[in-house]
Amino acid sequence: MATQGKVITCKAAVSYEPNKPLVIEDVEVAPPQAGEVRVQILFTALCHTDAYTWSGKDPEGLFPCILGHEAAGIVESVGEGVTEVKPGDHVIPCYQAECKECKFCKSGKTNLCGKIRGATGVGVMMNDKKSRFSVRGTPIYHFMGTSTFSQYTVVHDVSVAKIDPKAPLEKVCLLGCGVPTGLGAVWNTAKVEAGSNVAIFGLGTVGLAVAEGAKAAGASRIIGIDIDDRKFERGMHHLCLKCILYQLRIAAKDFGVTEFVNPKDHDKPIQQVLVDMTDGGVDYSFECIGNVSIMRAALECCHKGWGTSVIVGVAASGQEIATRPFQLVTGRVWKGTAFGGFKSRSQVPQLVDKYMNKEIKIDEYITHNLTLEEINKAFDLLHGGDCLRCVLKPLVLAVWTVEDDFK
Amino acid sequence: MATQGKVITCKAAVSYEPNKPLVIEDVEVAPPQAGEVRVQILFTALCHTDAYTWSGKDPEGLFPCILGHEAAGIVESVGEGVTEVKPGDHVIPCYQAECKECKFCKSGKTNLCGKIRGATGVGVMMNDKKSRFSVRGTPIYHFMGTSTFSQYTVVHDVSVAKIDPKAPLEKVCLLGCGVPTGLGAVWNTAKVEAGSNVAIFGLGTVGLAVAEGAKAAGASRIIGIDIDDRKFERGMHHLCLKCILYQLRIAAKDFGVTEFVNPKDHDKPIQQVLVDMTDGGVDYSFECIGNVSIMRAALECCHKGWGTSVIVGVAASGQEIATRPFQLVTGRVWKGTAFGGFKSRSQVPQLVDKYMNKEIKIDEYITHNLTLEEINKAFDLLHGGDCLRCVLKPLVLAVWTVEDDFK
Ligand SMILES: NC(=O)c1ccc[n+]([C@@H]2O[C@H](COP(=O)([O-])OP(=O)(O)OC[C@H]3O[C@@H](n4cnc5c(N)ncnc54)[C@H](O)[C@@H]3O)[C@@H](O)[C@H]2O)c1
Ligand SMILES: NC(=O)c1ccc[n+]([C@@H]2O[C@H](COP(=O)([O-])OP(=O)(O)OC[C@H]3O[C@@H](n4cnc5c(N)ncnc54)[C@H](O)[C@@H]3O)[C@@H](O)[C@H]2O)c1
Ligand SMILES: [Zn+2]
Ligand SMILES: [Zn+2]
Ligand SMILES: [Zn+2]
Ligand SMILES: [Zn+2]
Repeated sequence: MATQGKVITCKAAVSYEPNKPLVIEDVEVAPPQAGEVRVQILFTALCHTDAYTWSGKDPEGLFPCILGHEAAGIVESVGEGVTEVKPGDHVIPCYQAECKECKFCKSGKTNLCGKIRGATGVGVMMNDKKSRFSVRGTPIYHFMGTSTFSQYTVVHDVSVAKIDPKAPLEKVCLLGCGVPTGLGAVWNTAKVEAGSNVAIFGLGTVGLAVAEGAKAAGASRIIGIDIDDRKFERGMHHLCLKCILYQLRIAAKDFGVTEFVNPKDHDKPIQQVLVDMTDGGVDYSFECIGNVSIMRAALECCHKGWGTSVIVGVAASGQEIATRPFQLVTGRVWKGTAFGGFKSRSQVPQLVDKYMNKEIKIDEYITHNLTLEEINKAFDLLHGGDCLRCVLKPLVLAVWTVEDDFK
Repeated sequence: MATQGKVITCKAAVSYEPNKPLVIEDVEVAPPQAGEVRVQILFTALCHTDAYTWSGKDPEGLFPCILGHEAAGIVESVGEGVTEVKPGDHVIPCYQAECKECKFCKSGKTNLCGKIRGATGVGVMMNDKKSRFSVRGTPIYHFMGTSTFSQYTVVHDVSVAKIDPKAPLEKVCLLGCGVPTGLGAVWNTAKVEAGSNVAIFGLGTVGLAVAEGAKAAGASRIIGIDIDDRKFERGMHHLCLKCILYQLRIAAKDFGVTEFVNPKDHDKPIQQVLVDMTDGGVDYSFECIGNVSIMRAALECCHKGWGTSVIVGVAASGQEIATRPFQLVTGRVWKGTAFGGFKSRSQVPQLVDKYMNKEIKIDEYITHNLTLEEINKAFDLLHGGDCLRCVLKPLVLAVWTVEDDFK
């Protein structure tokens, strides 16, 4: 390609300060170095982790940065030594890397990879411990090793999953985070068996994907708990010109939820409500909110002897979970999951295939479609109850130039 | 037997009030009712759970009661409908029942049994919700469904394990609680694999049994953590006439511990010391103390991605464990164990056989031998650092009469 080896100037949404609107800027994206891949992002969704860092509550958040980690695109160019993808490949950037070589990857026990964490944790690339993004000479930090709120991004080769080129990128971008997290929490972390009773706290994208995963696993009762009744029977959304085409009548029960509980309808603590409903507690529970007191309730609504609770939600920094140790001594198990335990480069392509074979849903999670320019509106939507996932199209209305060509 | 169907008057150590010396009394032991078994206790050991209830800190502790739950004896008589044991059988009373019929027993997922909990939890027998013990007409509560600090006790048939009559009861009595708890925490709850790194917090009987279990499972590093250096290299105990014959030179390393850490020798938090020693944390950790802050340390010294921590120690009522949820989201697992996950009636006899085949130790855990009359001294020993298990012989110096014969 004409852009290969050159700096690309393109549009990106830059977060200069916590809690301040993102700014659409002309960002310079340096060419990929050894072991790196430059990806043209065609679609990116928003996830709560973006909003969390944006809010300033994440003590490890670095500014200015380019957020975004749920996306799909096409490889523009690759750096030295990159063999597993080439320009033109369709890819999903993965915030959980998979190097296949480190202690973690080789353990056979986890999907976490240790290889590039030292760099991604501090917003830079491994090779030279620097950023590939800059605006008028000022470096802009990377985020989660993905930074997908940009027309172009640079990621480590261990962080791109090559997928079926026939897959619609405007849908499968969701396989970068929320949907796999929910499915994998059920399939990989909890390993729910047929006939189980399941409780899901929080019916956002992640919670609904847990429901879908539990239904596929043959769970008999799938109890959804949310404080927002709209999550139970989801009707038409607000009418806006941008979204109307994509609006679907989605009901949580389409994802598999068989019973709904709104804690506000009960005087008893929610764990007691569930224990009473299920003759002693559920076999599996999932916390998909990020609220430490609900994490406790999710553990305590589990059946004595075997109930397993999986923490999926991400709590604010510094917050702690607590319970009486007797809860564990009498057989409950407390676990958590990151990206649903899926190994990113190996398994995201398989999830794409499952979607293509209609074995998993994606379209139903997409409630809004906007352009990258409208990203601040997308953040607002994320905080309203109507939105599951909003997919942004970075190319619409945006111009990209190859500045180096003119130097 | 001459005593069958009659009240037996025998010696028992009665706890009238929390924290007050136990009183050796003539206790009347009623005959077993339907589904019950009267057992002559030949040997009983003391465990920390006895001391905990005795101390008054257990809010469910009922007084007056007969404590004791780590014992062995011979069936004296059985009530109606009891088929699995008969007079003369050698048995170990089990505080975890196994009915083989309830939801728990049939789940295949837990060793907890629900059948008689409603009665044992409130110090009585299922059949008539009354106690079989009395002193001068006053009922004395049962404890943990076992009450072994007595020459005779009555237990539910689902709470007696029939064992090899050739097994020495003065040793295998330990299979009623502490030793199986430690072994099973490793084998059943954590399922430690060969080559694992293990950390054990607290090197009392339970912790040493964890070490023994981990060694048998092929763990490569077994790190023992205790604040009492005497637990590491155990020399001769204090010289007392009663104990001298039984004193053995026991070292924790004989049980499998490969490295020792005394938290007092370090300025850093103990979890950090262990993470540093093991390049990221241990594969499995076990809390065998009952201290909630050590439970947290035990979780946090586990390796990211897979480290599993098992709570074995019993904390004081009302105390809570806490950690940051991120510890679980990044792959650590928090569990607990009761009686090491062993199904009592099915598996205690197998443990007896393992001892007879020299596959597991018991003798090495017995540091003291006294008689039931000396029980208050035994409680003192339990709180000193020299004692692992003290085995009491209820028959020595004690007289038993069948009062009914003279009525
Ligand atoms: N572990 C991981 O790898 C991973 C990956 C992605 C997202 N997450 C986390 O998962 C969580 C859920 O993500 P999402 O995108 O589905 O979020 P979301 O905001 O769309 O959904 C959360 C739901 O919880 C409900 N809720 C809020 N408070 C509640 C309460 N007290 N009781 C019951 N329901 C309550 C809300 O009404 C909402 O429906 C977030 O914390 C996110 O950061 C974790
Ligand atoms: N879960 C179960 O089914 C079960 C069964 C039996 C016993 N238990 C419990 O297991 C625990 C251990 O029992 P045990 O008989 O071995 O007790 P023990 O008192 O003989 O051993 C405890 C050890 O912990 C050490 N210790 C105390 N505080 C410490 C600290 N802060 N750091 C490091 N070491 C410390 C002591 O020096 C001692 O060696 C008790 O809490 C008991 O109630 C549980
Ligand atoms: Zn996300
Ligand atoms: Zn790796
Ligand atoms: Zn015990
Ligand atoms: Zn049972």
